[in-house]
Amino acid sequence: MSTLTRDSAPSLEQLYAARARSPQPAAVWPEAPDNAISLSYGFAAPELFPTQELHSAAGEVLFEDAPEALNYGPTYPRLVELMAERMRARGVKLEASQILVTHGSSQALGLLPQVFVEPGDTVLIEGPSFMGAVRYFSAAGAKLVTVPTDEQGISVDALEEILREHRARGVRPKFLYTIPTYHNPTGTLLPLERRKRLVALAAEFGVLLVEDDAYGELRFEGEPATRLAALDEEGWVLHVSTFSKILAPGVRVGFVSGREEIIQRLAQFKIEGGNGPFITRVVERYCADGRLDAHIADLNALYRRKRDVMLAALKRELPAGWSAAVPQGGFFIWLKLPEGMSAQALLKASLQEGVIFEPGNRFYFNGQGDDAVRLAFSFQPEARIDEGIARIGAAMKTLL
Amino acid sequence: MSTLTRDSAPSLEQLYAARARSPQPAAVWPEAPDNAISLSYGFAAPELFPTQELHSAAGEVLFEDAPEALNYGPTYPRLVELMAERMRARGVKLEASQILVTHGSSQALGLLPQVFVEPGDTVLIEGPSFMGAVRYFSAAGAKLVTVPTDEQGISVDALEEILREHRARGVRPKFLYTIPTYHNPTGTLLPLERRKRLVALAAEFGVLLVEDDAYGELRFEGEPATRLAALDEEGWVLHVSTFSKILAPGVRVGFVSGREEIIQRLAQFKIEGGNGPFITRVVERYCADGRLDAHIADLNALYRRKRDVMLAALKRELPAGWSAAVPQGGFFIWLKLPEGMSAQALLKASLQEGVIFEPGNRFYFNGQGDDAVRLAFSFQPEARIDEGIARIGAAMKTLL
Repeated sequence: MSTLTRDSAPSLEQLYAARARSPQPAAVWPEAPDNAISLSYGFAAPELFPTQELHSAAGEVLFEDAPEALNYGPTYPRLVELMAERMRARGVKLEASQILVTHGSSQALGLLPQVFVEPGDTVLIEGPSFMGAVRYFSAAGAKLVTVPTDEQGISVDALEEILREHRARGVRPKFLYTIPTYHNPTGTLLPLERRKRLVALAAEFGVLLVEDDAYGELRFEGEPATRLAALDEEGWVLHVSTFSKILAPGVRVGFVSGREEIIQRLAQFKIEGGNGPFITRVVERYCADGRLDAHIADLNALYRRKRDVMLAALKRELPAGWSAAVPQGGFFIWLKLPEGMSAQALLKASLQEGVIFEPGNRFYFNGQGDDAVRLAFSFQPEARIDEGIARIGAAMKTLL
Repeated sequence: MSTLTRDSAPSLEQLYAARARSPQPAAVWPEAPDNAISLSYGFAAPELFPTQELHSAAGEVLFEDAPEALNYGPTYPRLVELMAERMRARGVKLEASQILVTHGSSQALGLLPQVFVEPGDTVLIEGPSFMGAVRYFSAAGAKLVTVPTDEQGISVDALEEILREHRARGVRPKFLYTIPTYHNPTGTLLPLERRKRLVALAAEFGVLLVEDDAYGELRFEGEPATRLAALDEEGWVLHVSTFSKILAPGVRVGFVSGREEIIQRLAQFKIEGGNGPFITRVVERYCADGRLDAHIADLNALYRRKRDVMLAALKRELPAGWSAAVPQGGFFIWLKLPEGMSAQALLKASLQEGVIFEPGNRFYFNGQGDDAVRLAFSFQPEARIDEGIARIGAAMKTLL
């Protein structure tokens, strides 16, 4: 039944800018079926949320600094300086003016295409990759080109070939979005030699490297990774990181660092200004006195144990034919399925068993990935990880 | 001295999208000269920041709800529902799905042109108006047309003429940005009859009314204003409001409400997602049990007293020839200067005396406004208001 309107009634439709004419459906926060065990999302472990410490930090801010913390004001400069110090401690030379604090790293990744992408521009992504970021690039009209990865991370040989082929056609990709350290979804750690070649290629071809370091501090063993930003002498690396994995996603504090002229442009498109003087002070206060590093050590002990519980459960519960690299950090295990088994089919069977995860194709833009699934060990308690993997094992058996 | 570069070194410049090629200077938080009394900015009164209550609210959230509040998650739905209830209590019919929570109302105003403005589109603004908003529209390439105001607010006659003239030329303005209640900078309260005509004109001409209600709850006397949104039967009003003036600017919580299809589009351009599950829970918890309304009553008593202190000081300290309407709410007094006195000249003389304020031309896009200044009574303690106005009086005398 149509609504009666005056024939001459003006329509709202004509007021929209072209970019807003086709609405995308609002983001829905997906829920697992009732009682299902979710190994889907890279949620933080709630066991270690530092509630008492955050309450104390909030108290320090409110009782000592309310006039500044609660009025209009910029992101707390000492938080920016603290981030600069932490970056310098990893060998990245930068000043506070080269850092923009954002509402989680997702805002930094969403601002990127506003500064760099016009419709039709080429953006390079890894296959597989974090689609949360890739969707921003796609929405801005980027032509996405997938660079393959192997068990060590991005294939630098393949990248070089792609860059040469583009140069031959006169096309200069805008940036490569890469997750070199404890990759999402594969968990891989890119070897130093490849990192060096990546940075050299970026300078040679004039392509920005967007280094997503969300998981970089979640290191269970081995030496700290040398960040791309630490290898970069010429300013071709834009480093994106976040407090979501090392403190709490709910505080929504991420940051992006790189050449000052890029940071200024990103800031210009962050229309709301700073992240707020209150929450940025609370996070800074929390980090003081080495509390953050002690907390990261606790997190890594917990996540390492959860990883080991999941690996043991995979060995115990799954029928033969699968394989998985042992991630040295991060939140995820990338499970290669037995020959011929489809991730989509396994997901369907697993939902019947009461467990949910992300099928591999959700991490590709080009339709690949039905041969693997991503399992998050970060969120569930250990007993639920055991039970979840047992259910996946049962589901697998129905497909054999 | 130029830096040596390889001849063939690729430049970053070519990677920028056209929209980002000319960087705007980063926003600088302006400071008054040392020891100057600032009556410039619409800062909230720090005397009444509810520090203890916010600390308690943060505690309730952290100790009762940390798993949800600190992990990934949307803006707390109960906060959205609470805003919907408050709007309904003002006679505005709406559902939670018609509200988007933003990082202060500034984010809502910054998102507006993304949904509605293409370069060259016409946007109507009041003269004078809040330039923080107008700058967003201008940056998006809008052609700004100033609608004059008088001592009661926007001239609806002038607006109608402008709309007819545009229609005759086949031009449909995208929206009118208006502050009907306790205007910034003039403090005026638009009479009900004009509100009704405004809403009728919007429907007739198919022009969106963007109602900035930032100050709407800061009412010192008189009946509550009937919001444009409450008069709107056909969905031509987009209502923008904020917790900045009734709780604290530092929490960065604003909201925009209106037709669901507009809200969905605004949400789509809010790339970082929700405002964070933590801070939105803290604000909701603070508001519970009538605490917010009690706080607003306290604020209005304080701001009314500060207004009266400023008005009395103006009468006592200023040489004759000025005029000012008594604002019934809000943060500002709009001081019309004695005939022939320039706001810029007065500002210069006032800086010598150690007091700072906003000259009237900062609130016009078309160069008008040198005959008035905006004085904020919200921020300074009463004794400083007295002293500040005395200094302005001294400065004025140097110009006579």
